[in-house]
Amino acid sequence: MFREEIKVLDCTIRDGGLMNNWKFSDEYVKAIYQACVKSGIDYMEIGYKSSEKAFSRKEVGCWKFCDDKDLRRIVGDNDTSLKLSAMCDIGRIEPDDISPADDSLLNMIRVAVYVNQMDKAIWLAEHCLDKGYEVTINLMAISTVMERDLEEALEDVAKSRVPIFYLVDSFGSMYCEQVERLVKKYQKYLPGRTIGIHMHNNMQLAFSNTVTGIIHNCNMLDATFLGIGRGAGNCPLELLMSFLKNPKYRMRPVLQVIQDYMLDMQKEIDWGYHIPYLITGAMNQHPRSAMKWMDGENKNDLVAFFNQMNDKQDL
Amino acid sequence: MFREEIKVLDCTIRDGGLMNNWKFSDEYVKAIYQACVKSGIDYMEIGYKSSEKAFSRKEVGCWKFCDDKDLRRIVGDNDTSLKLSAMCDIGRIEPDDISPADDSLLNMIRVAVYVNQMDKAIWLAEHCLDKGYEVTINLMAISTVMERDLEEALEDVAKSRVPIFYLVDSFGSMYCEQVERLVKKYQKYLPGRTIGIHMHNNMQLAFSNTVTGIIHNCNMLDATFLGIGRGAGNCPLELLMSFLKNPKYRMRPVLQVIQDYMLDMQKEIDWGYHIPYLITGAMNQHPRSAMKWMDGENKNDLVAFFNQMNDKQDL
Repeated sequence: MFREEIKVLDCTIRDGGLMNNWKFSDEYVKAIYQACVKSGIDYMEIGYKSSEKAFSRKEVGCWKFCDDKDLRRIVGDNDTSLKLSAMCDIGRIEPDDISPADDSLLNMIRVAVYVNQMDKAIWLAEHCLDKGYEVTINLMAISTVMERDLEEALEDVAKSRVPIFYLVDSFGSMYCEQVERLVKKYQKYLPGRTIGIHMHNNMQLAFSNTVTGIIHNCNMLDATFLGIGRGAGNCPLELLMSFLKNPKYRMRPVLQVIQDYMLDMQKEIDWGYHIPYLITGAMNQHPRSAMKWMDGENKNDLVAFFNQMNDKQDL
Repeated sequence: MFREEIKVLDCTIRDGGLMNNWKFSDEYVKAIYQACVKSGIDYMEIGYKSSEKAFSRKEVGCWKFCDDKDLRRIVGDNDTSLKLSAMCDIGRIEPDDISPADDSLLNMIRVAVYVNQMDKAIWLAEHCLDKGYEVTINLMAISTVMERDLEEALEDVAKSRVPIFYLVDSFGSMYCEQVERLVKKYQKYLPGRTIGIHMHNNMQLAFSNTVTGIIHNCNMLDATFLGIGRGAGNCPLELLMSFLKNPKYRMRPVLQVIQDYMLDMQKEIDWGYHIPYLITGAMNQHPRSAMKWMDGENKNDLVAFFNQMNDKQDL
């Protein structure tokens, strides 16, 4: 499918870092950056912008902060067509942590938000707009938001200057019909704005839900190399590339990084489709309990995890 | 989604056997059988019916033939609500190889066919109907069939007594829109017949395409434990179970078999999502070249496989 407006955002480092506290080697981050450039990806989200007060550098790598000096070590002056993005979590960033866009290698700030923080998110997003960044708001955990709260949030976004708004399936719990319905709702409340889509793969639906988004005119598409990301991971970039018939995208650089880095990395960082992630996804629960189970000695005792989760809910 | 007409068919042994020449232990086949019974699965396809002349027993296990004595060793008299199925390939079976249903533990015969063999398939299917079996025709490799040939085949099926007709994505190359279109075409040509769906997972779409089939009223659904099957495998049964809200289905027996057998088996038989399968799927090619590549020393040289396939076609 060729649609000129479509932009692909690689969030390999940012979302993948949720699995290893952003402790990636410079060599790896450079390889991802260069592959994004060569394959024609539009945006690379290289990490979070966070306050130094919110996290200890002993516990998390530098991509939790995305200082300009760290960025420069990887991308130089980034004299390419690839734009760089960082994500902010409401409550973990001070406005002054974000320097003017002219002084930064970052091109875009994405504000991740829960529905009850929408006012703060809009304030921060407009603050970033005023500093010269491209900006999105990514509303998380949408599968647990009550309809009236969602509508109020959308009404607030509609009144704002935020140009891009994301449908995010944080729990990997949504099917195509839910994606279609929410995309249409976002479009109805936000005419003329770009709708983005960020899916998780708990039920092997991250790619197909992204395709559903494309069919219904989502134009910002998140993906990662070999689907790396929290828990079951994200929409695999190589699948998205194979689907998009846009001549600007190139498959070989994506495959090269997968064979050079991702196949080995997957042996260390065990993201991807695993039954505990399916169970939390199907139950519309945060993946943290599944991730904890996967880190435990009994990770393969699937029935025990199912029973534990069924204290809460039947499946 | 609850729809009483929906039937689930487990084809773990039949399709999974394509990866190990049906050399499963009796213990394993029994475990699958018992899990199917306990979880409320409607049909278990335990293998192929084949002519002794077509294959050597030195090369393939007993589930390539499904003799009654082998079936009985696993299921006894099968005094359960689970029905047993076997698949026939046109050209690899003689009509006399199939005993009357009253003398067999099998309840259903599924006839797998390429479009140019449809006349033979209808003859064989009606032969099996007359012998007392439930019968389906499964038209393979549909993604390479020209539209007029498909329509002629559907017209022939419409004139026959065959009650169930399957949409099969042999190459794992179809997206939701293609599935929807073909399901609707099958229904238009075959009003009143049951449409089944059998998807492959080359592009992580086997489950989502099956959901698309369900939405458009496919009522026979193929799946396998942990998605075992040729190449990238099939629609994972555990995902289908989590989606179907039918109270007759049970999740725990499915999870128990996955933890007891499938996780270890996946280390030996490397089915599932691998990039070579994506490449053949996205190129609408038979997975055999990808399977051959996955068996070779250079299985992780993804760019080389991509280049090899690109002698044929660009992606």
